[in-house]
Amino acid sequence: MVNETQQTSSASSSSRSDGGSSSGSESSKDNSRCSTPVLDADRHERLREKMRRRQEAGDRWFSLEFFPPRTANAAVNLISRFDRMGAGGPLFIDVTWHPAGDPGSDKETSSMIIANTAVNYCGLETILHMTCCNQTKDDITGHLQKAKRLGLKNIMALRGDPSGEEWEEEVDGFNHAVDLVKHIRNEFDDYFDICVAGYPKGHPEAESYEADLRHLKEKVFAGADFIITQLFFRPETFFKFMKDCQAIGITCPIIPGIFPIQGYHSLRQLVKLSKLEVPQEIKDVIEPIKDNDAAIRNYGVELAVSMCRELLDSGMVHGLHFYTLNREVATTEVLKRLGLWREDPRRPLPWAVSAHPKRRVEDVRPIFWASRPKSYIYRTQEWDDFPNGRWGNSSSPAFGELKDYYLFYLKSKSPREELLKMWGEELTSEESVFEVFTCYITGEPNRNGYKVTCMPWNDDPLATETNLLKDELERVNRRGILTINSQPNINGKPSTDPIVGWGPSGGYVFQKAYLEFFTSSEIVTALLKVLKKYEQRVNYHIVNVKGQNITNAPDLQPNAVTWGIFPGREIIQPTVVDPVSFLSWKDEAFALWIEQWAKLYEEESPSRMIIQYIHDNYYLVNLVDNDFPLENCLWQVVEDTFELLN
Amino acid sequence: MVNETQQTSSASSSSRSDGGSSSGSESSKDNSRCSTPVLDADRHERLREKMRRRQEAGDRWFSLEFFPPRTANAAVNLISRFDRMGAGGPLFIDVTWHPAGDPGSDKETSSMIIANTAVNYCGLETILHMTCCNQTKDDITGHLQKAKRLGLKNIMALRGDPSGEEWEEEVDGFNHAVDLVKHIRNEFDDYFDICVAGYPKGHPEAESYEADLRHLKEKVFAGADFIITQLFFRPETFFKFMKDCQAIGITCPIIPGIFPIQGYHSLRQLVKLSKLEVPQEIKDVIEPIKDNDAAIRNYGVELAVSMCRELLDSGMVHGLHFYTLNREVATTEVLKRLGLWREDPRRPLPWAVSAHPKRRVEDVRPIFWASRPKSYIYRTQEWDDFPNGRWGNSSSPAFGELKDYYLFYLKSKSPREELLKMWGEELTSEESVFEVFTCYITGEPNRNGYKVTCMPWNDDPLATETNLLKDELERVNRRGILTINSQPNINGKPSTDPIVGWGPSGGYVFQKAYLEFFTSSEIVTALLKVLKKYEQRVNYHIVNVKGQNITNAPDLQPNAVTWGIFPGREIIQPTVVDPVSFLSWKDEAFALWIEQWAKLYEEESPSRMIIQYIHDNYYLVNLVDNDFPLENCLWQVVEDTFELLN
Repeated sequence: MVNETQQTSSASSSSRSDGGSSSGSESSKDNSRCSTPVLDADRHERLREKMRRRQEAGDRWFSLEFFPPRTANAAVNLISRFDRMGAGGPLFIDVTWHPAGDPGSDKETSSMIIANTAVNYCGLETILHMTCCNQTKDDITGHLQKAKRLGLKNIMALRGDPSGEEWEEEVDGFNHAVDLVKHIRNEFDDYFDICVAGYPKGHPEAESYEADLRHLKEKVFAGADFIITQLFFRPETFFKFMKDCQAIGITCPIIPGIFPIQGYHSLRQLVKLSKLEVPQEIKDVIEPIKDNDAAIRNYGVELAVSMCRELLDSGMVHGLHFYTLNREVATTEVLKRLGLWREDPRRPLPWAVSAHPKRRVEDVRPIFWASRPKSYIYRTQEWDDFPNGRWGNSSSPAFGELKDYYLFYLKSKSPREELLKMWGEELTSEESVFEVFTCYITGEPNRNGYKVTCMPWNDDPLATETNLLKDELERVNRRGILTINSQPNINGKPSTDPIVGWGPSGGYVFQKAYLEFFTSSEIVTALLKVLKKYEQRVNYHIVNVKGQNITNAPDLQPNAVTWGIFPGREIIQPTVVDPVSFLSWKDEAFALWIEQWAKLYEEESPSRMIIQYIHDNYYLVNLVDNDFPLENCLWQVVEDTFELLN
Repeated sequence: MVNETQQTSSASSSSRSDGGSSSGSESSKDNSRCSTPVLDADRHERLREKMRRRQEAGDRWFSLEFFPPRTANAAVNLISRFDRMGAGGPLFIDVTWHPAGDPGSDKETSSMIIANTAVNYCGLETILHMTCCNQTKDDITGHLQKAKRLGLKNIMALRGDPSGEEWEEEVDGFNHAVDLVKHIRNEFDDYFDICVAGYPKGHPEAESYEADLRHLKEKVFAGADFIITQLFFRPETFFKFMKDCQAIGITCPIIPGIFPIQGYHSLRQLVKLSKLEVPQEIKDVIEPIKDNDAAIRNYGVELAVSMCRELLDSGMVHGLHFYTLNREVATTEVLKRLGLWREDPRRPLPWAVSAHPKRRVEDVRPIFWASRPKSYIYRTQEWDDFPNGRWGNSSSPAFGELKDYYLFYLKSKSPREELLKMWGEELTSEESVFEVFTCYITGEPNRNGYKVTCMPWNDDPLATETNLLKDELERVNRRGILTINSQPNINGKPSTDPIVGWGPSGGYVFQKAYLEFFTSSEIVTALLKVLKKYEQRVNYHIVNVKGQNITNAPDLQPNAVTWGIFPGREIIQPTVVDPVSFLSWKDEAFALWIEQWAKLYEEESPSRMIIQYIHDNYYLVNLVDNDFPLENCLWQVVEDTFELLN
């Protein structure tokens, strides 16, 4: 019954997405088309559809499993890891459910919040694990409702380990994963994609291997969409399991769980927990090198690569699921050697998209948050509609306040001590601030020998694209034009360009040159005189912390600064310089001086007063050169300004 | 009281439009911006604001007065004249009110319908005259409501000539224009801009010149926005009148009415009607040449040019109002000699905009109606919203049926006999149809010596832009690719380009190459084979009259084929190839074969059967080359197709 529903719905969505292929197809007059160009089918499909499409296209894919961290600091690090490993192109990640760690709570270390962050702030398709034993129906429903509210769309339905020795099945309780699957389908219809666990050697508590297979079939027939297996050590184990599943009528995708051995102790612990036996041939290799971590890891990578190759070569396997143990090196190495790691990540849009369902149609953002996409997502999380092509009216909803600069997913990855080394234990003048900006741009160590790898407005080193402007940026920062955002002009590069490309292939991308910086009122006065010469060609917004605002923007219209032209589509203009949201950004940009920098120093200290002075007196300026086919004139504007001052 | 309201409202709109200038201005956080880029302030302002802005900018302008025609055929001609004279750039036109001609009715010759056509189908700012004597309040309110419903925004409030000799003022009736002004302000608040008539020599029925000035002041203080004067023969007459108006406190614009003398009889008649006296010095010139029309017209032009120059040079006059008597030559000549005729009409968008207030935000249309903009406006007149940036969902409202091909403003300007001469008294084969298409493209006479200056799909000769493709079009039409619409690819030409430019200056315009044609099923079969080689690069829609539809368009998404990038604005993409509306266009395009061409011939005649055969069996094809920066590949596609057929 449930399976029937699924098939119908997946068939209907299949006919929708097939229309997107470029083969000739008959179509009739129909108004069911999308309201926004399909930038990337990945943003619109459910996980099970993505899986099916990848399989049909003969694409191979991988996914990554993580567990929630124990501490807030570890959470900050895990989110960075999501960003880094997300760049390799996993089809999804999953986050395990830690019954002991208050998994459904709002703590930054809870399973729920980590999964929420992965989806909304890292833009990753995410499966949240959920266990059911020892929990009431209301608890479970509550967790599921919360997951749905946060934009989570996939659940891995598990029984979980019963707590206490005397656990007994409860009548009408949640005794098995199948009860959870049924409950999800009863209460949430087809909203969630459901994954269940398969045990290639049979579940350790099952009466028999065959009995366990029957349980698995029950879970699938209750409404599960696909299966991820427990780890195993030999490909034959998986092949036999897969054939046995098919023999009893299980037809959904079965994804092998891969565990690259990363160390002697972690292997022993995992084996103990999962009640698996390590084959003798592996023990024979490992025992002699058990104290040599590097050797074991190398062996583990070799072993995993060879097993994965065998699995993929069989033609029975299209995707591989990795138990990462929250570590990067081994899994990344295996994926790179298999050729599954996406070396040239194609960006659907110039900015990092969010995977929340309501943001699927989002296709335009102000450029100001380019280096703080998570902050932008956070501050617009309450919006009901996302600007859909036109920025205009849709921006009416106000930006959320950003009072809590310590939201863990917005937090600087670097601790206070490191920031002080980078930005200066002691500042002596505005010029020492100019030096920090200059070192960030050049990548050279500062006078104390430390490299400046982040700034309050940029938590990462300079973007490849910004590198194109490095020399010019260095020159102007030295002289007190403190840049925090910029892009070169681009006049029709292929959408597949490795540095500035984005969107579907076969298109062309364009940019207007953009420069955003803080600077003193003296420089602003000269700049305004110079800008008179560039009227119409250069649009500017100049604002101080008090909100004094000088602009030549026509009305309050946004200026499109990045756009793309693609085959068979409307124009896409994903970044704009928007006069209205600039005033919200201004508050955030000025506050970062204080919250991230000034507060590193004692109150009343000279260092703190220097930053406070800049905060109180400098202006935030943005400049757009509208003549994108010509050479960028913004550097000339700045040169003219310096000349006028001399 | 009314005047106060006016001033407030014009002051507030002034501050809005001032923001549009590029001078630095302070602005505060405010969500009152437009939802669509301001393409042309002319589309958004009321007439009185346009007048004020032009005056402030030191621009000089002109306007044109027409009277409603007597016959339906004359109405067709008048509409063509609106299009031709509209190209010269009048600030507005006005249409007189003919009480004897059922002026408020739905007849195609009524004042109301002519004004409606000028606004909605010719895109002209229009003033509808309205007289009030001998009419009931309800009649007048009804006319005003209808005018508002049709999108008319300006009324010239007149008393009109009382009918019958015994006319007497009615108590509480509409005895004077001032009563109509008051009524409009009472019933319609500030909706309409109101113009009133001024008499430089005093109204012939007024007690005195001074008394007439007081009446004029009453009309202005009752809510009129500006004054147009009765014709006069000497500039001094106007200067005196203007000073006298100012002396008694009339400060609104006063626009001199200019009457270029075009012939002896029309002058006599007009003078008799308006009870004016022709100065002796003019009589002295005209009487001796009264039978020489050309000489009188030349004199009239000279006289008008010299008077207009004097008026403009005085600095008191910013705009000139021309009594055209529905004729083109003399007025156009005067305007050209004065340098007021817009030689290089800047287009706000690539298509002719409508002046209906609800279409002010319209900024995207399907390319199919490029040569039939009036038909597009007609078929979408019931739409509540106009696609605003994104075509997508907004296109859901269905296109209106186009059953009546004889709507006068959609009718071919050429009578049946002329069409037969152009398109063939007798067709012998499909090839003779190819010949007609080819002659239309080349401009060469057909085998009977007639030039083909229009086609069922194009009522005008080939556009300048299409001329760029003339050689290629000729070659393919000869071989049975019967083109009805095309545009070359453009990769970033200045928006001021005289041929392909549009929109505000300082921008860049782009186009994808487009080709639309009818062709046989044999050619379509070969074409489809060829198109496989061009997948992704070329998008196509191929449909026959029965609705068989072959396309490679992704989903049902529109393909933007014309777009512009402007300083400080969002991207504007005014034409799209839209798969949904193509099916509505298809019905219209096929029907034109029958309605405009086949029906020229007797039923069952061979000529008619040839056209009917084409209608029943040919396909309508459109092709887009997505690679706009490269050389247009569509000609190669067609060549490859012919080669495959050989």
